[in-house]
Amino acid sequence: MKNTTIFKSNDGLKPKSKFRPLAINQVQVEGFFGPHIDVIATTTAKLLFDRCVEARMMEQIDPALPNPGIVIACHPNNSVTSQMFWDSDFGKSIETAAYALYRQPDPELEKRVDEVIDAYGRLQAEDGYLNSWYQRIEVGKQWTNLRDRHELYNAGHLIEGAVAYFHATGKRTFLDIMCRYADCIEQNFGPKEGQKRGYPGHPELELALVKLGRVTGEQRYLDLAKFFVDVRGESPLYFDLEATARGENPDDFHFDSLEYCQAHQPVREQQKVVGHAVRAAYLYAGMADVATEFADDSLDPALQAIWSHLTEKNLYVTGGFGPSKENEGLTFDYDLPNQTAYAETCAAVALIFWASRMLGREPDARFADIMEQALYNGALSGISADGTHFFYDNPLESYGTHHRWRWHTCPCCPPNISRLIASIGTYFYGIAEDELALHLYCENSADMEIAGTRLNVKQTTRYPNDGQITVTLTPDTPVEFTLSMRVPGWAKGYKLMINGQSQELALEKGYLRIRRQWAQGDRVELDLTMVAEMLYANKMVAADQGRTALQRGPMVYCVEETDNQAPLNTFVIKDGAKIETTMIEGLVGTVGLEVDATVETSHSDALYTSHPPERVATKLRAIPYYLWDNREPGAMLVWLRREAQAHDE
Amino acid sequence: MKNTTIFKSNDGLKPKSKFRPLAINQVQVEGFFGPHIDVIATTTAKLLFDRCVEARMMEQIDPALPNPGIVIACHPNNSVTSQMFWDSDFGKSIETAAYALYRQPDPELEKRVDEVIDAYGRLQAEDGYLNSWYQRIEVGKQWTNLRDRHELYNAGHLIEGAVAYFHATGKRTFLDIMCRYADCIEQNFGPKEGQKRGYPGHPELELALVKLGRVTGEQRYLDLAKFFVDVRGESPLYFDLEATARGENPDDFHFDSLEYCQAHQPVREQQKVVGHAVRAAYLYAGMADVATEFADDSLDPALQAIWSHLTEKNLYVTGGFGPSKENEGLTFDYDLPNQTAYAETCAAVALIFWASRMLGREPDARFADIMEQALYNGALSGISADGTHFFYDNPLESYGTHHRWRWHTCPCCPPNISRLIASIGTYFYGIAEDELALHLYCENSADMEIAGTRLNVKQTTRYPNDGQITVTLTPDTPVEFTLSMRVPGWAKGYKLMINGQSQELALEKGYLRIRRQWAQGDRVELDLTMVAEMLYANKMVAADQGRTALQRGPMVYCVEETDNQAPLNTFVIKDGAKIETTMIEGLVGTVGLEVDATVETSHSDALYTSHPPERVATKLRAIPYYLWDNREPGAMLVWLRREAQAHDE
Repeated sequence: MKNTTIFKSNDGLKPKSKFRPLAINQVQVEGFFGPHIDVIATTTAKLLFDRCVEARMMEQIDPALPNPGIVIACHPNNSVTSQMFWDSDFGKSIETAAYALYRQPDPELEKRVDEVIDAYGRLQAEDGYLNSWYQRIEVGKQWTNLRDRHELYNAGHLIEGAVAYFHATGKRTFLDIMCRYADCIEQNFGPKEGQKRGYPGHPELELALVKLGRVTGEQRYLDLAKFFVDVRGESPLYFDLEATARGENPDDFHFDSLEYCQAHQPVREQQKVVGHAVRAAYLYAGMADVATEFADDSLDPALQAIWSHLTEKNLYVTGGFGPSKENEGLTFDYDLPNQTAYAETCAAVALIFWASRMLGREPDARFADIMEQALYNGALSGISADGTHFFYDNPLESYGTHHRWRWHTCPCCPPNISRLIASIGTYFYGIAEDELALHLYCENSADMEIAGTRLNVKQTTRYPNDGQITVTLTPDTPVEFTLSMRVPGWAKGYKLMINGQSQELALEKGYLRIRRQWAQGDRVELDLTMVAEMLYANKMVAADQGRTALQRGPMVYCVEETDNQAPLNTFVIKDGAKIETTMIEGLVGTVGLEVDATVETSHSDALYTSHPPERVATKLRAIPYYLWDNREPGAMLVWLRREAQAHDE
Repeated sequence: MKNTTIFKSNDGLKPKSKFRPLAINQVQVEGFFGPHIDVIATTTAKLLFDRCVEARMMEQIDPALPNPGIVIACHPNNSVTSQMFWDSDFGKSIETAAYALYRQPDPELEKRVDEVIDAYGRLQAEDGYLNSWYQRIEVGKQWTNLRDRHELYNAGHLIEGAVAYFHATGKRTFLDIMCRYADCIEQNFGPKEGQKRGYPGHPELELALVKLGRVTGEQRYLDLAKFFVDVRGESPLYFDLEATARGENPDDFHFDSLEYCQAHQPVREQQKVVGHAVRAAYLYAGMADVATEFADDSLDPALQAIWSHLTEKNLYVTGGFGPSKENEGLTFDYDLPNQTAYAETCAAVALIFWASRMLGREPDARFADIMEQALYNGALSGISADGTHFFYDNPLESYGTHHRWRWHTCPCCPPNISRLIASIGTYFYGIAEDELALHLYCENSADMEIAGTRLNVKQTTRYPNDGQITVTLTPDTPVEFTLSMRVPGWAKGYKLMINGQSQELALEKGYLRIRRQWAQGDRVELDLTMVAEMLYANKMVAADQGRTALQRGPMVYCVEETDNQAPLNTFVIKDGAKIETTMIEGLVGTVGLEVDATVETSHSDALYTSHPPERVATKLRAIPYYLWDNREPGAMLVWLRREAQAHDE
């Protein structure tokens, strides 16, 4: 691991009154996330490429290979397949590798990435077009099915990979390739006569173009991002026109409504989170980016309404969303089944992307709290502790048959969670011209420029194991700016000290915003009161009635069969039960919970009986949700049975 | 409705020491099932044909029409479809019409049925072959894909239709057609050199051939049924050989294992209920029929083991089974989710078929109790009170979005539940040479021959509204035989009187077996103690822990939103809560239940909170499960939240 950080300016475009994240090369992460990043750097980044090769994805992008049938060859049982999205997985794998290489040099991995980049370079057409599906499989049909074929989505992920690889290694080859492709897209799509008024069926390119604009300083990439946001859902619906042009009936769309891809109406008129969960959150992230970059207030009402609709009626307590496998997305309000929860890893990751971008205008714990909730629970669960296996769907209850995959025919989640973890430091801070917001807490050292002065920020903390955070500021010279520190919604209280002196300060949207001149060695201590507690779901959530979830700090807990020797739904907790922290066998360094409970036993072996079960007092042991399925395979449960205390009635 | 019943001998083959059901023309049903049968007779039987026409199924069987593409035309979104099973739906619709015509003459309906029968007559090939899919769509490919194409299954349902139509109307045309087809099958399949050793991918033909053998007196149909049972699952596996012959890899079978169609091993080696639920129960029904007809004890261990496995580990309290939509069938033991329960109507119907045939060797309440449980709950729920809408899947919990279909692209359930109800009288009794078993109680009058004497049996009862049954026997002359009356497992006690005199008699396998000489006017009164009670599921059933189901007599109850003004999972019942019978608005004549409960209300509108909900005492109103979704649409719940009484801890 590097001990020194060479400070580079974040982006070509300077921030004004907008908050932007730091780049990968500005934050050195230790503490809780340090070992997680190391697993990605030493194991997962390389493994992603190995398994891409194994799944024969590699052949697809290498034009030296003649066989256009290889995509189909992967699926002996299917005559059709939909691996038109594999470019995106290469994009995310390159992005992961970039962050891994920044964390820990690995010449072999770097060589493999460069080979893939070279293959893309060879594949790229004269006019800059680059899409291995349309250049190898559906030749000649580009730009004819934006709705279904992931064409612009692939472009977005490759761009994100290129930006990351440039930030991490300083190499420009891939960035140049992707700029040429972005130029090609810009030529084909736009408001001018003869240009297409289309947009991504699977959003993602919007946020990628904002990244590309920031790193290159090219306003036109931001403008193109804004075009895709503005034109989406306008009448007549582009996807319907396009389907008709293909000779199809638009009404035959497999997912019935264009709500599936959030293209049913202009984005500013959208008020509810609908359709495919990942598409939704990627789109909203792009909208938030555009709102930030263009100070476009007209997007705010839609973003706020959709945010409320998601977080107040459709979000799992783990920060996952999208309960249904059918559409990989939303169904109806308060539909949050546990055992069949889809809650795709990518959806939690995408929610983190969206939440982080909702922080582009100002610090607001409404967004940062959800970002943290999704991060420590429904996202982090997506990868095994050893970095080799991956959840696609993240149920909140398992009867013992749900386990992480080695790989998946739609391998979107493995590189998605990997790139998130490997770049998690970039989500800790938001930096504006004269304000630094601390959104997430974790031991780290970050370098940046604020109000014209170089600044190093160090967080010293065992967070999330406890709630004590010390921030040490080291500006080159004394400098006035606002330091904004989040007080998470779960905190039962907090204490703030600056250089050892207690401070009284009101919360502004969940942040302590401390404006002063900061000098070298200034020390801010924040002590968040972290207690384990029982959560209850709204009465409209049918699946969670009579149940409680355990939470401590940002961590939602679950119980596993391996720690609790009876069917998990036979345990009952009384409201107000004693909860103590404990060590858990096989999970070193993890804060487990032990709760007073009773356990019920059936009167007989009969399937049904009129005799109520018998009860015995016992303890229930819980672990953080994200760590489940890392030891003995078995049943798992987040929402535990509860009962009111006798005196409540 | 007919007031007189012309007695006809049941079958060509005389029963020996085996129990057989009565034929449709032997039982005149009133009481609870009377109005249900009338709805089928006046509404549903005709409607089945209307909707078959509407779904363009009629065109398929009429060879006068030239277009082989019609099957595909029904599915604008699909390039392939699988309506190779439509013959079976005609078979079941004809069977339903037959019973309806027996209940109530309807010249128009009879004419329509005769037209369909004539179309089948015209379609039938020289050699007797008759299958509209293979004669219209996959021409020339008959007998090449028994595993997937429902070819022999269709034959079975058409045979059942033909037998019923003969019993009900005395017309032989369809029976003759189907005998010719059965002869064709008998020529092609069998143990002889040059014959195929294949068997139905979807069992059903086995039990149909037994019916055909009984009505025609032809032993060879029984022998063919036995052949299909005996040869099933022998090595090498026929379905694998057949797949290889088609140029397919047997391992590519869509459902992975031949467990899906219970063809993974010889039936006598099978010990567990596996795969597609309807296929399973139809097969076991056929096995039980063969065991009865051939007094084949070698089938008993498998039948008993599978029965135990189903009823002790895999049966919903409603008598439904097969929790999974994926395979329309079984998954793993105790997997009985409520909201996503598939529990196909046809599976409950098929279980009734199987259970009734398990009674072929002797009266045993183990089988009759389950038959009754499935009948009054998971089967009867399949049709709306007005006979016009149908459940395919029967969840035990709904959030308000599950409703009966008007029709279905796979319309197997509507005619299946209809033919069961319309012929329910034939399930009431089992008759052997000198024993008459009363398996089900309902007001009715039945004519039969026993020990060489004509006998009329009348049940007078309000069952299942209460548990008092009076049986009046009217033999032509005094005759000695055993009258066996079931005491259901739910009965908390019983009293038996013969001609007004109390009797003490031990139960034999759940039956009171009364042997004596019976004379005209002998009266047997059975008073079953029927109380409403709370049921509890085994601790291994994850979905039902902390929950209770209400039962009274054979009826399982549910609560509906329309009777209970709060989210249904916010109600909690204490073990031992007071339960009273009550009238229910909108459900005349139905015994509802009212239970002491508390209702919880969320502390706030927040999706999650650390404040436990508040509680208020209230009442919960429940209706028989089968009646749900007949009034205001809304949520429904069978397994209600429960808590132990305070003193239990």
